[in-house]
Amino acid sequence: MSDQLSRVPPQDVRTVTCVGAGVIGGGWVAYFLSRGYRVVAWDPAEDAEARLRHLVGTAWTALTDLGLAPGASPDSPFDNLTVVPDLTDACAQADFVQESAPEDLELKRTLLADIDAATPEHVVISSSTSGYGMSEMQVRCAHPERTVVGHPFNPPYLIPLVEVVGGTATSPEVVAWTSDFFRHAGKSVITMDSEVPGFIANRLQEALWREALHMVAEGEATVEQIDLSITDGPGLRWAIQGPMLTFHLAGGQGGMAHMLDHFGPSLLSPWTRLTAPELTPELRDAVVDGCEREAGGRSVDDLVAERDRGVIAILRALGRV
Amino acid sequence: MSDQLSRVPPQDVRTVTCVGAGVIGGGWVAYFLSRGYRVVAWDPAEDAEARLRHLVGTAWTALTDLGLAPGASPDSPFDNLTVVPDLTDACAQADFVQESAPEDLELKRTLLADIDAATPEHVVISSSTSGYGMSEMQVRCAHPERTVVGHPFNPPYLIPLVEVVGGTATSPEVVAWTSDFFRHAGKSVITMDSEVPGFIANRLQEALWREALHMVAEGEATVEQIDLSITDGPGLRWAIQGPMLTFHLAGGQGGMAHMLDHFGPSLLSPWTRLTAPELTPELRDAVVDGCEREAGGRSVDDLVAERDRGVIAILRALGRV
Repeated sequence: MSDQLSRVPPQDVRTVTCVGAGVIGGGWVAYFLSRGYRVVAWDPAEDAEARLRHLVGTAWTALTDLGLAPGASPDSPFDNLTVVPDLTDACAQADFVQESAPEDLELKRTLLADIDAATPEHVVISSSTSGYGMSEMQVRCAHPERTVVGHPFNPPYLIPLVEVVGGTATSPEVVAWTSDFFRHAGKSVITMDSEVPGFIANRLQEALWREALHMVAEGEATVEQIDLSITDGPGLRWAIQGPMLTFHLAGGQGGMAHMLDHFGPSLLSPWTRLTAPELTPELRDAVVDGCEREAGGRSVDDLVAERDRGVIAILRALGRV
Repeated sequence: MSDQLSRVPPQDVRTVTCVGAGVIGGGWVAYFLSRGYRVVAWDPAEDAEARLRHLVGTAWTALTDLGLAPGASPDSPFDNLTVVPDLTDACAQADFVQESAPEDLELKRTLLADIDAATPEHVVISSSTSGYGMSEMQVRCAHPERTVVGHPFNPPYLIPLVEVVGGTATSPEVVAWTSDFFRHAGKSVITMDSEVPGFIANRLQEALWREALHMVAEGEATVEQIDLSITDGPGLRWAIQGPMLTFHLAGGQGGMAHMLDHFGPSLLSPWTRLTAPELTPELRDAVVDGCEREAGGRSVDDLVAERDRGVIAILRALGRV
């Protein structure tokens, strides 16, 4: 395909066009500027440019503190930023497009079609959508094969994760290119094989959030108690080891296998309103094997020591000890 | 009541008896030793003392690094530890008892009754149970009024959170005493007004965990992807700001009110298998008001700056930037 042949290598992207410049879009603008890209931004809101400059200015303190990439302006974040009033103009200049419009399917469908029409055919168009599949968003594009989801976390200029997943009409080569591009840009990338509503982290976060809302609705916990229960509890572990490795260590020397055998029955407890999956032998083995792979030869003692060093470092870094 | 009158003030507790010395019980032993308490431990398992000494020895590196309290032995954690072969002996010496037996209701009922019979009447007996209510565990105790849940997080020697909640027969004065004791011992305490299965943090964690298991069972994500999606995504925020304040900032300058108005409809999305609560005006206001109270006059800009400093500090502390 000609578009594939003429696509710039991920490391040669120079100009990123950011469509939509709210909390997420503006965060992307700040991030790409700090990584040395030239950024063209477009947002139809009246006060968009003022809000964008406020957000980028605030983020810049953090980003210069972390260290700017070669090409980023040490004097002002605005040196490499162009805010243009016209979407077609913005897209015509792009080596890569990141769309971060409000979460509205009809709006996204129309906007992606407009971006698609205005962007050179070889350029990849990525969407920050928090939950729509690209399959349902790309339906009006003439070149849907170069549209893909690149889902960040707030703030995109500090949180490393980007989830990359294509729709049914997306070329697998575009999924791979986009993953490479985000990695080259300094992101931590999860490339998903198939579309799942909400992707991965948002599904996990949403399950927690819904349970929290239920607890507030039932008068079981206050907003403050919910936040404290996370920041002073499992939240301190989750920056270091995810939920799977966390429970691998809850099993003591026996690891996840022991944990599932010991706490498996608690899946039947009414601890959340989320119905548990059946803990089949296949699921048990998949989880145990996954933890072993992830541990990659590190013993439970090694992982405990890593976690403990991490928790102490976090408590110190946050000035809590 | 005579037991209340003769109860030592929380700050005068000297000897803590730890019943059960596995991952959680052993973690408590290490923590109390580091805070300068004398600890008496009992565990019926054959190799319990060897495992306990291994766990405490490992934890001690972290704990001495954090700084020991006056009274803790700088030479060896074992100076103030006595492991006794007899439960009655162990309980007779206690100013406070922390029970951390395996999660088995019948076992807990019998064990708590045995502890109750062996412990001086004025001494509080706390359980590390991850999910049982004290109402269902205290049924065989002669003095259930001094039994209470004090639920820690793994590892209890580093994670600050303890959830304190009584059962129907627990004296409110014991709930207050226990909260004061844990606070005096350096813990971050949530005192719950009523029993909810799994308390607060475990309900939230369990919702996330069940969704994760569903994703593995359905082949939607691997164990490694699930962990990476948390450690490189929302996990970095949750050590700083809980799920409520996190979404308060997702709303931009409009805060939680804007966030609920914008993303509220996504509660209807199939993003998790957990059915969402109805976002009634009452629930919306409870969440918005809670965030305002928690923000305590800090603007969204203030909170964003705090979060950004925190994320950077964590990334640095973990050696990731």
